[in-house]
Amino acid sequence: MSHPSEKALVPFVSVDNMMKLIHHIGLEDMLKGLATYIEDDFKRWNSFDKTPRVASHSEVGVIELMPTSDGEAYGFKYVNGHPKNTSEGLQTVTAFGLLADVYTGYPVLLTEMTLLTALRTSATSAMVAKHLAPQGADTMAMIGNGAQSEFQTLAMKAICGLKTVRLYDNDPSATRKCAQNLSGLGINIVSCSTPEDAIQGAQILTTCTADKQCATILTDNMVGAGVHINAIGGDCPGKTELAAGILSRSDVFVEFPPQTRIEGEIQQMAEDFPVTEFWKVVTGQAQGRSDARQITLFDSVGFAIEDFSALRYIRDHINGTGYYEDLDMLADPDDPRDLFGMLTRAKT
Amino acid sequence: MSHPSEKALVPFVSVDNMMKLIHHIGLEDMLKGLATYIEDDFKRWNSFDKTPRVASHSEVGVIELMPTSDGEAYGFKYVNGHPKNTSEGLQTVTAFGLLADVYTGYPVLLTEMTLLTALRTSATSAMVAKHLAPQGADTMAMIGNGAQSEFQTLAMKAICGLKTVRLYDNDPSATRKCAQNLSGLGINIVSCSTPEDAIQGAQILTTCTADKQCATILTDNMVGAGVHINAIGGDCPGKTELAAGILSRSDVFVEFPPQTRIEGEIQQMAEDFPVTEFWKVVTGQAQGRSDARQITLFDSVGFAIEDFSALRYIRDHINGTGYYEDLDMLADPDDPRDLFGMLTRAKT
Repeated sequence: MSHPSEKALVPFVSVDNMMKLIHHIGLEDMLKGLATYIEDDFKRWNSFDKTPRVASHSEVGVIELMPTSDGEAYGFKYVNGHPKNTSEGLQTVTAFGLLADVYTGYPVLLTEMTLLTALRTSATSAMVAKHLAPQGADTMAMIGNGAQSEFQTLAMKAICGLKTVRLYDNDPSATRKCAQNLSGLGINIVSCSTPEDAIQGAQILTTCTADKQCATILTDNMVGAGVHINAIGGDCPGKTELAAGILSRSDVFVEFPPQTRIEGEIQQMAEDFPVTEFWKVVTGQAQGRSDARQITLFDSVGFAIEDFSALRYIRDHINGTGYYEDLDMLADPDDPRDLFGMLTRAKT
Repeated sequence: MSHPSEKALVPFVSVDNMMKLIHHIGLEDMLKGLATYIEDDFKRWNSFDKTPRVASHSEVGVIELMPTSDGEAYGFKYVNGHPKNTSEGLQTVTAFGLLADVYTGYPVLLTEMTLLTALRTSATSAMVAKHLAPQGADTMAMIGNGAQSEFQTLAMKAICGLKTVRLYDNDPSATRKCAQNLSGLGINIVSCSTPEDAIQGAQILTTCTADKQCATILTDNMVGAGVHINAIGGDCPGKTELAAGILSRSDVFVEFPPQTRIEGEIQQMAEDFPVTEFWKVVTGQAQGRSDARQITLFDSVGFAIEDFSALRYIRDHINGTGYYEDLDMLADPDDPRDLFGMLTRAKT
């Protein structure tokens, strides 16, 4: 049979190729590039079709589809969340994504997104911190030293000039793992045995813990004036990390309020609790940090547009690298009305 | 680096492998098998999570995600609809689908669905006709001889005992293509030059034309008593094929009323126009055909559960065939918390 035409082939980036692509570009350069793509898309926030994620819940987890479109490209991410998976040797979260051409409806990229989501999440955090953290911030407390912690640290280094990270996790082996992974990468690492120790001298406080419960990782009296809180781990209903008192004293910035009010730290607050949509800070329509003593808080839950930016970045950077394979995913008969003929001819 | 574990690999059925699988099983046997899977899922209709499709519309087309779950497996189909594509040498519709394990959230199958959708659509039509067509029906008028026509004909042959098909299309070259594709496959073929000629002696009238407009492929006076109408082509807002008068005289059976009232032939009728949900006929909760002179009408638009059945069928039938490849789509670090370590080790 004849080879499928180019139109019928969809470039696919496997986990192995994604790792090769990251090393080819360089992790910090890729985080910077992703942050630029994400910031560019935040600048044109209103050009996106914003749908809430489509979730299918079960007793043990959730499977979600997160679609969005800017009118030229259409993207979606498949992502699951199964906290019990870790105890069975599986990932809590796995993800893949697809980008398509709105004009033809044809997919143009399929890619793993477990790694890519880790990168886009930390690139988003750092891009936001660049706008909101106090001037000269160079020390971060990293509370929760799981899968996201090294990426958060390196993104803050690459994008915000972070010099020192102070690690804390209630599991010391997680802190050891994180410290070891970060050693030799040009960042001062201080391993701490209490969260109170970790926040000493830090202008950026990042919380990224994994338990699905309303926890209090930061209590009210731990957070002083003049810090930026980057709250990653409160990202689904019933899962928060901050004491409500901290939220009351902070100026809270969010991605997409209808989603954050359900999934973020502010699920603890009244429905009309005031928040600023972060895209308005990027475009100059809203104020970011207004004085040095203010507490700014990015209540991050992850939004489809950030995945879209990441898919765009990959599409634009795989050409010529060889770090993808072509999948024969779309039927492409010579005569579009003759699908049956294509099938018949394949027999010979 | 080490090879990804089996859990991280997702079986992928390309277009080429789907064609090989169809020939390996045999097209008619596969249509029969698909009809059985679809009928089984109609029998347990209430065990499904039924979400309306998630559509992203543009001026030239639509991209849709169609998810569903039975609590054990989760499936979705990506499908586009771009009528203008044909004039640019592209498919109007392309599709792919994914099946995942609800318990882990891990994908277990990725497959092309352009061909598979053609098969599941015709298997559904024939399964429904088996329940609704007049006894002894052995002649079908096939109006619209495009990509679906040969599959419809062979499904009716395999599942309902069809002996003769009477072809009509307003483009004679489409009829020639269909007649040629069906020749030698054990069915009598009569090519007709008018729709009035095509319906002579036919107990099953199938309409499957492609123009996106309210057309009248069957006028009221063409349809006599004692027939089953299998209306495939009226499947989106603004696209119908039957005169409203035919609907008024028919008993209308549908897949999922909230979707069919928007997309099907009954979009022409009042919101409370009476219809029967077909799954109730399969389970014996509603009457199918009650007398020989009745006109039954299946107002088919295609529903997510039929795709789910087709995905289940493929998952159950690829093992041992070799007609798939394993995609390294899910990151699988030895320690789930150590995504960064997996990335670092891949460098060496």
